[in-house]
Amino acid sequence: MKLNHILESQQFTRPLINELFAVANQMDRVLVRGGTQDYNNKIMATLFYEPSTRTRFSFEAAMHRLGGRVISTENARDFSSGTTGESLEDTINVLNNYTDVIVLRHNEIDGSKRAAKVSHVPIINAGDGKGGQHPTQALLDLYTIYKERGSIEGLKIAFSGDLADGRTVRSLSYLLGKFERVKLYFVAPQIIQMKNDILEYLDNNEVWYDLHDDLKSVVSDVDVIYQTRIDKDRFGEKVDDYEKYTKEYYIDRNVLQRMAKHAIIMHPLPRLKEISPEVDNDPRAAYFRQARNGILVRMALLSMLF
Amino acid sequence: MKLNHILESQQFTRPLINELFAVANQMDRVLVRGGTQDYNNKIMATLFYEPSTRTRFSFEAAMHRLGGRVISTENARDFSSGTTGESLEDTINVLNNYTDVIVLRHNEIDGSKRAAKVSHVPIINAGDGKGGQHPTQALLDLYTIYKERGSIEGLKIAFSGDLADGRTVRSLSYLLGKFERVKLYFVAPQIIQMKNDILEYLDNNEVWYDLHDDLKSVVSDVDVIYQTRIDKDRFGEKVDDYEKYTKEYYIDRNVLQRMAKHAIIMHPLPRLKEISPEVDNDPRAAYFRQARNGILVRMALLSMLF
Amino acid sequence: MKLNHILESQQFTRPLINELFAVANQMDRVLVRGGTQDYNNKIMATLFYEPSTRTRFSFEAAMHRLGGRVISTENARDFSSGTTGESLEDTINVLNNYTDVIVLRHNEIDGSKRAAKVSHVPIINAGDGKGGQHPTQALLDLYTIYKERGSIEGLKIAFSGDLADGRTVRSLSYLLGKFERVKLYFVAPQIIQMKNDILEYLDNNEVWYDLHDDLKSVVSDVDVIYQTRIDKDRFGEKVDDYEKYTKEYYIDRNVLQRMAKHAIIMHPLPRLKEISPEVDNDPRAAYFRQARNGILVRMALLSMLF
Repeated sequence: MKLNHILESQQFTRPLINELFAVANQMDRVLVRGGTQDYNNKIMATLFYEPSTRTRFSFEAAMHRLGGRVISTENARDFSSGTTGESLEDTINVLNNYTDVIVLRHNEIDGSKRAAKVSHVPIINAGDGKGGQHPTQALLDLYTIYKERGSIEGLKIAFSGDLADGRTVRSLSYLLGKFERVKLYFVAPQIIQMKNDILEYLDNNEVWYDLHDDLKSVVSDVDVIYQTRIDKDRFGEKVDDYEKYTKEYYIDRNVLQRMAKHAIIMHPLPRLKEISPEVDNDPRAAYFRQARNGILVRMALLSMLF
Repeated sequence: MKLNHILESQQFTRPLINELFAVANQMDRVLVRGGTQDYNNKIMATLFYEPSTRTRFSFEAAMHRLGGRVISTENARDFSSGTTGESLEDTINVLNNYTDVIVLRHNEIDGSKRAAKVSHVPIINAGDGKGGQHPTQALLDLYTIYKERGSIEGLKIAFSGDLADGRTVRSLSYLLGKFERVKLYFVAPQIIQMKNDILEYLDNNEVWYDLHDDLKSVVSDVDVIYQTRIDKDRFGEKVDDYEKYTKEYYIDRNVLQRMAKHAIIMHPLPRLKEISPEVDNDPRAAYFRQARNGILVRMALLSMLF
Repeated sequence: MKLNHILESQQFTRPLINELFAVANQMDRVLVRGGTQDYNNKIMATLFYEPSTRTRFSFEAAMHRLGGRVISTENARDFSSGTTGESLEDTINVLNNYTDVIVLRHNEIDGSKRAAKVSHVPIINAGDGKGGQHPTQALLDLYTIYKERGSIEGLKIAFSGDLADGRTVRSLSYLLGKFERVKLYFVAPQIIQMKNDILEYLDNNEVWYDLHDDLKSVVSDVDVIYQTRIDKDRFGEKVDDYEKYTKEYYIDRNVLQRMAKHAIIMHPLPRLKEISPEVDNDPRAAYFRQARNGILVRMALLSMLF
């Protein structure tokens, strides 16, 4: 299958996901051998209109492990010195003459789609806008579940925390809906519970889901707990609510004890207080392994684009 | 011919320009084959005292296409943590021990000359000061005209927009004056018309030029239209003048219709409103090809320095 | 000897220092040949919580001369976009999945020790906190003395300027104390004279030292003058004191005339006014050669860690 751009989770069909997982597995073996120099004539640009050192580092490490080269900016808004207002389209047209792939973090929804419309080299959406897509994050999450559990079909997966605005959770829910007999548990207080657009999508595709507001009642039943960070800012002056929820939707050794032996805990990182550090050394804590899978998935995506 | 530093357009004689064009043509073939690893033991530092992501990316991509390596800063003013005031000369002396070539964007006229005075490794001036030089931009512009039209002798070239302060236009006018039978049309309102120092140079070298203030009366006669951006700031509170001039010195499909079939439109980029996007897909729009030529010329210059 | 992390000068025993010097000498030959591609499958991250372009460039150039690859940030505080407060430990855990070595400049004393506690890949302390360690600087200083003078035993070494807060001087004094018959002269006004903790260490290890406040009376006796910058800020409103001391602890041609023919002048750089530029061309001015030795020592340390 030919990949031209990576813009949104929706473009990943089951066959394409299968191919991606197979290539990512190969990349695991490449990585263990110390990487490859196969792509030493390729240049990747990271064009970030807002800083995200973590995501940028992950893409850059993946490109280096493939032998490729990187040109990088976290200040894309200053792309033209002393001048503001060059269109994204012009910037992309110029970069087309410099690089073989452009990793774009834009500050507007559909920034990456606008870029792809004029670009002859592949655009990878590395997150655009609040509430926009971040497809490579969703794919690495999906790959992590697949790798940790052997398959995705039939798994019970709980999402906990801020589900309303978390683009990671929203994209991942979408992708999980493509797998058979998956059961999704959305565990959050009402005001940050999963939004209707995703629930309708799941209804239309006959995906089983349930809404909860009590994390403890769910943890013993599931194969995966996907924990997320609750944003303090969204509670404004209701600091008490924020404090209350961060205590209720919290993973510590008490939660670990209720969890199944084979279950795993995931988190998109960065973590603040929502998982106790005492959980880190438990083999079920998969969140740092997620970071490594991010390298594998991005190596796989880059190699599929070239 | 041995190049030691690249500081100003004036140092490029006709034989040196011919050699540069020949090497840039070779680099075009190298680029099509995916670059070379010939210079994988060379390190280039980009030392930018003011940000210019576009210029920095162009140099870095050129270096990577040659197989070389890059260390980079856009915050050269903070070169020494917690301390201001290290002299440029000391910084250059230190970098001489780290790298094989230094690409310098300085904030003062003659910054690059000061650097070259103490440097044992080549200095490339990537723009210094307001009204200073930016020789690699002028050379890539010249190369673009040569490549698009086959030769430069006898061409009619119009410059439009802000000619008073545009260092690109000023440097390029200087270089074009070295070619026989070239005719230059400076098209601008009086207050941003080309300054006397360049006109005197052209007089002394018997280069034909004419001053105009009506773009439409010129466009059908010329082989090249070099369009530039008018800076809003220089008009202060006279916003009406700015608005008026941006409408008069504007390239759209009406201008395209008057242009010769073989003529080209150039622009140093970034563009704001001075060229309509409807022009972009016309084959005469050469400004994005200019960006690619920038890579070729910088690859050529780097290889000539090594 | 196996090096796991490079955290503080104290971990460098005499045998380890000897090995380091031998490897650095090899690296000199490697550098003259244009570097090596031996480590082209290694990735180094520079994770700087405060900017230090000079130190970052030195490490990055060293890594490139080894053939390695670099991912880099000077804005580590923004490691997670839109969120502050990820623990250093989590950041290191994530980076462990991306890179083979982490060069850390942290803003707190013991930042690098905290990092090393959780890291499976080597941590190199590139300076932590005010008054903290900067061991690679001390090692390159030590290597410079060794290289310039052939050996360290029996040398007379004067430190001049701000000795109270200079972490370079403090670390280097510590290392010099390991060599036999070394004599240390601390030359500074009382308020910025060397602190008691280092003096006690020297007493306990029977290292000869003397305190002075007159630079001119010392310069003719010593083999090395290690000059440092006096920080204006620490004098607050007593600007007169600052001005007075910068004149008294100043190296110019008058000092040069008193110095022995074989003596050398060192400086950690950046220099402000404490050494006159007229000294730069004297062969005894070793401070720019120090910068080159920094590359050699860092190449050696990186290769010893891999």
